[in-house]
Amino acid sequence: MTGVRDVLVVAPHPDDDVIGCGGSIAKHVQGGARVTVVVVIGRERSALDDGVGDAEFAAETAAAAKAMGVHRCIRLDEPSRDFALSRRVHLELVRILREVRPQVVYLPHDNDDDVEHRMVHQLATEALWMAGSDFFHETGGEPMPAPRLVLGYEVWAPMSRFQYAEDIDGQIETKVEAMRAYASQLRHAAWDEGIRGLARYRGALASGSGHAEVFQVLSLGAPAAPGGCRD
Amino acid sequence: MTGVRDVLVVAPHPDDDVIGCGGSIAKHVQGGARVTVVVVIGRERSALDDGVGDAEFAAETAAAAKAMGVHRCIRLDEPSRDFALSRRVHLELVRILREVRPQVVYLPHDNDDDVEHRMVHQLATEALWMAGSDFFHETGGEPMPAPRLVLGYEVWAPMSRFQYAEDIDGQIETKVEAMRAYASQLRHAAWDEGIRGLARYRGALASGSGHAEVFQVLSLGAPAAPGGCRD
Amino acid sequence: MTGVRDVLVVAPHPDDDVIGCGGSIAKHVQGGARVTVVVVIGRERSALDDGVGDAEFAAETAAAAKAMGVHRCIRLDEPSRDFALSRRVHLELVRILREVRPQVVYLPHDNDDDVEHRMVHQLATEALWMAGSDFFHETGGEPMPAPRLVLGYEVWAPMSRFQYAEDIDGQIETKVEAMRAYASQLRHAAWDEGIRGLARYRGALASGSGHAEVFQVLSLGAPAAPGGCRD
Amino acid sequence: MTGVRDVLVVAPHPDDDVIGCGGSIAKHVQGGARVTVVVVIGRERSALDDGVGDAEFAAETAAAAKAMGVHRCIRLDEPSRDFALSRRVHLELVRILREVRPQVVYLPHDNDDDVEHRMVHQLATEALWMAGSDFFHETGGEPMPAPRLVLGYEVWAPMSRFQYAEDIDGQIETKVEAMRAYASQLRHAAWDEGIRGLARYRGALASGSGHAEVFQVLSLGAPAAPGGCRD
Amino acid sequence: MTGVRDVLVVAPHPDDDVIGCGGSIAKHVQGGARVTVVVVIGRERSALDDGVGDAEFAAETAAAAKAMGVHRCIRLDEPSRDFALSRRVHLELVRILREVRPQVVYLPHDNDDDVEHRMVHQLATEALWMAGSDFFHETGGEPMPAPRLVLGYEVWAPMSRFQYAEDIDGQIETKVEAMRAYASQLRHAAWDEGIRGLARYRGALASGSGHAEVFQVLSLGAPAAPGGCRD
Amino acid sequence: MTGVRDVLVVAPHPDDDVIGCGGSIAKHVQGGARVTVVVVIGRERSALDDGVGDAEFAAETAAAAKAMGVHRCIRLDEPSRDFALSRRVHLELVRILREVRPQVVYLPHDNDDDVEHRMVHQLATEALWMAGSDFFHETGGEPMPAPRLVLGYEVWAPMSRFQYAEDIDGQIETKVEAMRAYASQLRHAAWDEGIRGLARYRGALASGSGHAEVFQVLSLGAPAAPGGCRD
Repeated sequence: MTGVRDVLVVAPHPDDDVIGCGGSIAKHVQGGARVTVVVVIGRERSALDDGVGDAEFAAETAAAAKAMGVHRCIRLDEPSRDFALSRRVHLELVRILREVRPQVVYLPHDNDDDVEHRMVHQLATEALWMAGSDFFHETGGEPMPAPRLVLGYEVWAPMSRFQYAEDIDGQIETKVEAMRAYASQLRHAAWDEGIRGLARYRGALASGSGHAEVFQVLSLGAPAAPGGCRD
Repeated sequence: MTGVRDVLVVAPHPDDDVIGCGGSIAKHVQGGARVTVVVVIGRERSALDDGVGDAEFAAETAAAAKAMGVHRCIRLDEPSRDFALSRRVHLELVRILREVRPQVVYLPHDNDDDVEHRMVHQLATEALWMAGSDFFHETGGEPMPAPRLVLGYEVWAPMSRFQYAEDIDGQIETKVEAMRAYASQLRHAAWDEGIRGLARYRGALASGSGHAEVFQVLSLGAPAAPGGCRD
Repeated sequence: MTGVRDVLVVAPHPDDDVIGCGGSIAKHVQGGARVTVVVVIGRERSALDDGVGDAEFAAETAAAAKAMGVHRCIRLDEPSRDFALSRRVHLELVRILREVRPQVVYLPHDNDDDVEHRMVHQLATEALWMAGSDFFHETGGEPMPAPRLVLGYEVWAPMSRFQYAEDIDGQIETKVEAMRAYASQLRHAAWDEGIRGLARYRGALASGSGHAEVFQVLSLGAPAAPGGCRD
Repeated sequence: MTGVRDVLVVAPHPDDDVIGCGGSIAKHVQGGARVTVVVVIGRERSALDDGVGDAEFAAETAAAAKAMGVHRCIRLDEPSRDFALSRRVHLELVRILREVRPQVVYLPHDNDDDVEHRMVHQLATEALWMAGSDFFHETGGEPMPAPRLVLGYEVWAPMSRFQYAEDIDGQIETKVEAMRAYASQLRHAAWDEGIRGLARYRGALASGSGHAEVFQVLSLGAPAAPGGCRD
Repeated sequence: MTGVRDVLVVAPHPDDDVIGCGGSIAKHVQGGARVTVVVVIGRERSALDDGVGDAEFAAETAAAAKAMGVHRCIRLDEPSRDFALSRRVHLELVRILREVRPQVVYLPHDNDDDVEHRMVHQLATEALWMAGSDFFHETGGEPMPAPRLVLGYEVWAPMSRFQYAEDIDGQIETKVEAMRAYASQLRHAAWDEGIRGLARYRGALASGSGHAEVFQVLSLGAPAAPGGCRD
Repeated sequence: MTGVRDVLVVAPHPDDDVIGCGGSIAKHVQGGARVTVVVVIGRERSALDDGVGDAEFAAETAAAAKAMGVHRCIRLDEPSRDFALSRRVHLELVRILREVRPQVVYLPHDNDDDVEHRMVHQLATEALWMAGSDFFHETGGEPMPAPRLVLGYEVWAPMSRFQYAEDIDGQIETKVEAMRAYASQLRHAAWDEGIRGLARYRGALASGSGHAEVFQVLSLGAPAAPGGCRD
């Protein structure tokens, strides 16, 4: 997409951005956009990665972001399994939206198979409305213009219908490399090969070959309407 | 939308194009596009308009099309209440799609409150896939490139969620005028005032004022991807 | 509806009662019923209406209620964006239901496009069950007889199907006047013209002309059964 | 319901009227209404009832109708498993509706677990709209006023939500007796005890005791509006 | 089911286990399995049963469990109408799952008509995933092997589709007897006769006669796969 | 699954069996079962495979079946895009079911993204009921016992939720080889790599590694109930 300066990705947990839209992130960066990732919920620890301290885990996250060329990564560190929607967390996201003012926004799709993903979908949907309204000026910043495109990505539950497919044949290795930066996560599941597999299936389905990420279109702003340009 | 040369509107019955996207049609025409309307099912007669002969009714249709600036109107004249999906009717629509090769396509949304509207939604969805495939070459023509945008419009059941809103404040009078060309239909219901009302509500909802038509985004092609251009 | 003495309207925010069923409220009042409105969530302030103090806003609410002839308006003042369902708030609504003992109840429909509207739908649905049960006697009052009719109204997301339409051709000006009493809200959107538009569309759809409000039928009590009368 | 003169029940197959709303039929008859049953699809034969000839089966149907007090039973005899929606079958039902002009209509609910039940739901829904319109005057008769109440009943898939419950504690034995008239059907399943069981469960759920039939409210006409009376 | 050693039933409130799967519990016990019941939410008191003290109510629960042969009943006593999903309550259930290590699990189906039932469905679904993962080792215990079967049962809203039916013709009297142990609940509704009725209807529907409980299949582990045995 | 003698796979078009459950077919064959595949709709030709004659295409189908070890492949050759549900086609499938008497049945899941797949889902669902009933004895054969397991597979739309996962790590190469036998289909899309990718993603999701096929559980017969054995 030409003319995209800023992209915002809302991720429930660390690495959901890579799984859901890591190839698209890399493609935006290659196209000259700045990509900001907001990770809403903090890390969950397991017996398998107890040896992995916070610093080490932060290094994994940083390495994944670097692989994709992410400009900035913001962590809200909401508590896992105690995450609840509140005015405070809505306003935090509104503040970020009004500062970043993205043209493209990514969030989990509306039916992912993890309750925290669905809660973050709702949080981001509400925050987008709030950020564009005349209300909530305690966040500072001006009301945000509507993004040109808001897309829902898939992590735990693939979508039965999609409205947009991004060709990421040139970015699939970057996506897998970013996933592999999360060495502690790969002890639980072979996510690196899993996401390569899904991208291959989506590529065959969407265009007959290659790799793709597919998305729910949640909101489309008027792209270059006759007689003017939105945003 | 810049660069739109051809638009195709699939209407179940005469006047559904006006109700669902008459303002957008007029806006496309003003932007320089050619708009083709395909009306799938033939006229239903009532006691109230028995006096209206076929020639007179055709004149109403022609006047409506002229008001909006429609380039061409194609009637398939499938039988009302006996309409059934078949290979023949799919191929007729595939043939038209491969000839017109539209960048933007409008069809009834997937949950309209009329069984024939839902059947035409399915017909058009299948025909879009067929027209783009390597199959069905008995229709002649080359496989059609994917449209940039496929939108679902509302007639009998307003959509509870929409993904795209078109500002038609400058086209609302044209839309109402086109509706009034169907004098025989206005004997049954005040559709002219009804559609003005819905556009006013949609305008207030979507942007706080004015008039709007709102749409389901059924498919979005990659709009000017970095490093190339789809279509 | 003959024999309706008391009507209860549950509104998530101030003015939702006007948008959703203001014409029906006025019609009930004209028919001799007392209408009580419960507003669950408090006012949200915006940059545009900072100059509007609480007293001034309260005056707007009072003026709207007066225009429609509302008997009593009860504010629960739950916190916006921090609203959560709890035993306390359920019991507050149960207490009101057992006191008012309405024959007709209005609440937001089950799929409105605002998370607080959907939460209030659920709150009211549960409270209706609780109020009629033998439990929760800490609220005082006797168990409430089942209302004759419980209806869901539309605000942000029009319903794709409805089961009941109220002709408000004689009340549309009152409805618009009540909306205009909320001068501070009209700075954000032309709700006065928006709701007139929707009522016009619903009128054309439901009966061919005039203005209407349409509703989801959530519960229908046996109206004057043979051999007796419920409630 | 007072003032009900005519009731129409649309049944996909023989005995669906008994299972879905046999108690309500008997209650209408006791209240002085005339009940007409339309059975859309013909009898299916099985190895178990081959010995049951058409005359014998017709006698079963007649005995069931007599038990409930049905005024008239109309068979359309559409072919089982070859049933298709067509203009012809729509017009047959429109003709009946315009002749009977019922105040209350019963049809299968919208999600019953039998494809022919769902087809008859759609047929009846469309026919109700057609019968009330100015169109289709080839059926003879005047457009039908909207019924006061259109209800969906349950046969193969109980409804997860219902909006109306009819107390049939006084009619349950009649309902079971009508079912037992279909001796040939009881060889396949103990429907007589099955429907008594469901009515008992619905009674406990809806009012704590007794027997009930529960319904989806598909359409509610304005019952005795202030200042006038619909129909 | 052969080889079932341990069964876990998750019940939102006391007696939901009896209503939803009391016959299956008794059948498991007869087959030699140990059945553990977890009741998540505490008792709600009513005006009708104020005379029933906690000890007396506990005796009712114990009598019901004894009738069915339940091995152990665990009460979490979460507050009614103030119940909220939290890390704490998830971990409590994970701890129990990792201790019991059941082969078969029962929980409310995903669409029951009570908000607390739907919350407990979600709680149990999440806890099942958590208990099997490498995470959450603060609960003690080893990760739990996936159960062979996870089933959803019906209480307030019968399921419109089911995937599994258990013949409980030999257990129906035990189920009703267990229900009757809750003498305080029967003052509100004739649940004993209601559940007998539903089981009768389900029996006729599922196999033509007898009594049955029907279930949603939420998860099926590989039952005795060729070349090995899961769990 | 031990004790499985006969498996039936219902495929809308040639190769859907391979895509949806080719690994499971091979696994059943390795476990000693006979697998019968019914292909309902005939071949569609395209410009790209015009050179591929019927004999050559039949050879592709035979090679795919041979790779998986399919016992018998039955073609109904219903017309593509003119396929309609009828008594005739239902009875053909009932006849096959009553002859094969399978313990496990596979069909397309209920929401696949191709109208003919959804039609075949419905056809097979109805035919399963018909085959087990006392009716339709014109097909010959005795009523079929209920299968132990009926599963829905995914082709064009991956399922957002699944209830059963089959580990096909040992069969993935066979599945891919069977797909490659359809050389004419691979000209349209790289299905061989697409299905390998999906299986890899499903493996990571379902068990952390390997390859899997996932399924909707449509019906589960009582597997080895205490005190007896179904079927």
